[in-house]
Amino acid sequence: MEVRIPKRTLAEGLSLLERVIPSRSSNPILTYLPIELSEHGLILRGTNGEVDLEVKLPAEIQGSGQVLVPAQTFSQIVRSAPGELVELIFETGERLGLHSGAFNTQLSVTNPDGYPELAFATPGPEKIAAARLAQALTRVRYAASTEEYRAIFRGVQLEMSPQGLRAVASDGYRLARYDLPMELSTRKLVIPAKSADEIVRVFKDAPGEVAFAVGEGTLTLVGENLRMAVKLMEGEFPDYARVIPQSFVLEATLPAEALRESLKRVAVLSDRNNHRVNLLFEGGKLTINAEGDYGQGREELGTQASGEPQLMVAYNAQYLIEALAPIEGAVRIRLSGPTSPSVVQAVEDTGYLAVVVPLRV
Amino acid sequence: MEVRIPKRTLAEGLSLLERVIPSRSSNPILTYLPIELSEHGLILRGTNGEVDLEVKLPAEIQGSGQVLVPAQTFSQIVRSAPGELVELIFETGERLGLHSGAFNTQLSVTNPDGYPELAFATPGPEKIAAARLAQALTRVRYAASTEEYRAIFRGVQLEMSPQGLRAVASDGYRLARYDLPMELSTRKLVIPAKSADEIVRVFKDAPGEVAFAVGEGTLTLVGENLRMAVKLMEGEFPDYARVIPQSFVLEATLPAEALRESLKRVAVLSDRNNHRVNLLFEGGKLTINAEGDYGQGREELGTQASGEPQLMVAYNAQYLIEALAPIEGAVRIRLSGPTSPSVVQAVEDTGYLAVVVPLRV
Repeated sequence: MEVRIPKRTLAEGLSLLERVIPSRSSNPILTYLPIELSEHGLILRGTNGEVDLEVKLPAEIQGSGQVLVPAQTFSQIVRSAPGELVELIFETGERLGLHSGAFNTQLSVTNPDGYPELAFATPGPEKIAAARLAQALTRVRYAASTEEYRAIFRGVQLEMSPQGLRAVASDGYRLARYDLPMELSTRKLVIPAKSADEIVRVFKDAPGEVAFAVGEGTLTLVGENLRMAVKLMEGEFPDYARVIPQSFVLEATLPAEALRESLKRVAVLSDRNNHRVNLLFEGGKLTINAEGDYGQGREELGTQASGEPQLMVAYNAQYLIEALAPIEGAVRIRLSGPTSPSVVQAVEDTGYLAVVVPLRV
Repeated sequence: MEVRIPKRTLAEGLSLLERVIPSRSSNPILTYLPIELSEHGLILRGTNGEVDLEVKLPAEIQGSGQVLVPAQTFSQIVRSAPGELVELIFETGERLGLHSGAFNTQLSVTNPDGYPELAFATPGPEKIAAARLAQALTRVRYAASTEEYRAIFRGVQLEMSPQGLRAVASDGYRLARYDLPMELSTRKLVIPAKSADEIVRVFKDAPGEVAFAVGEGTLTLVGENLRMAVKLMEGEFPDYARVIPQSFVLEATLPAEALRESLKRVAVLSDRNNHRVNLLFEGGKLTINAEGDYGQGREELGTQASGEPQLMVAYNAQYLIEALAPIEGAVRIRLSGPTSPSVVQAVEDTGYLAVVVPLRV
């Protein structure tokens, strides 16, 4: 059993697994890395109990078999290897030789029998571009809750239908929704937000498309040389559509970046507890101001507005800044009133929609 | 009272003060920033009780006076200011107006009377180039102790004499010494290692020279537009010269960088408690190996050696790696025996000297 593989290829594969494999665990075997040699390549796996990941790397391989090595130590050694090639030699059942340039190690290996079986389901014919799936999750993930209360909101809901893929997250004070038009069979599932982060991390730069399978509380994603299985949350979001207002009293358009930067500046002076900023829409002008223990800040921006001639609304600055983050170019803010939800959307790309509930006056 | 100052100048001045001014303190007034307007410029000050710092910034100033503003908030605001210029207007005794582009703030200010007097001594005629002073401290600082035991070793000793400036640090297991040839009056003082870090941070990129004054347990450093006063430690190092061996049984020369990288690789496998690596010098070859719970690592390097034909010595890898860090080009390692101290020095620049005590076999 021997492998010759470019150091870089191996290090990149390990970096994908690094966050999935825990550095400590009540089940210590999970801190190990299963390495399998097969005719398909060098296969690395890892799991933290929530997310299972498998990475297949092209390599020059002789023989077949499987060993377990301590994941963190193995990664450190590979990263520091002096040569461009790394040679792995499975000498006996107890040692893995790693050679690179003038550097030689003999790593203790462990019997792989105790390692949990990672079960990846076989996907159907439907596919989503890896980068777009990652994008949909990234756009909405910020709005997921971190509270124990109503645990379902700690997840990101994916709704598949013949209209497309919709990702939704909410914590009850704000909501983010992203639509990706495509034709899919109808399904609804909720991914824990932390697992959504792992999907983004692994697939955002992955080439090609991702096929998927939903079953037994698990979503399996299969990309080129990558397989990932994510435990799903039970249940689904309560009807969130009713918090998205349908009629508005004021609509304003302005550059998203300028608004974001201005909010960040003014928010420095805001109350430390509620990060309250007041937005006064008046004619072609938006005045943002905040006041806290250390004084007050104010900034004016030009805007194109229609509807009420004057309206004051207050937000948690952090929520509004996060709602604006995915928007490039101009943003359209639609207000349904000073204390009822506002809708934030890009003027150009309306696939993304955010709802922010104003603070009470 | 009004100031006009480029945002960049003000932000750079604040960044020097940022680490000195505490973000929390049992004496809350220390979290404030005293701002003084004078004919000499805009003067910013800060202290954490151990280190006092004063920064003078060129600015367009009308009037004179002094206020206290909340340091962290003020820095955040200045950094996020949208314009290239920042205008400060001391409107009444209670408010400081800060204007930049379309952004306006009114910061609450505090009466400066309660702020402690920062006393900078008047320096003598002797001077040291700012960058070289920072370099001397940087070279040796790693060897300072972090233990409570023998607290004097938590400092860096500066020895001034007609031969030059010598910086020394030690924790009893290793020692670092750096000599800067120049003519100075004779003095010996010990700077807390953490304050040495602040001196390095402030002066490493400072232009020109630093004048200094030693008195009443304080070292005052005066550079261009900068004044710093550092509380000194009481006492001085015990006679450390006797731990520097004078006769050797083996001397080896090899590239410092290659040795450092090799030690880092092999050390990954070393025992987690003592980081033990074994170095076997044998003819023109140095073999480094380590063994720990996860296996063993080994690497060979070419070396030019004289003295004993074969010698095995063990070090804490971390100590040897740190001793090598300041060395560029080739390193000369001189061994006085397998369990007695070794001397590490660059072949070219012998101003720096490190002593590392081997681990017992």
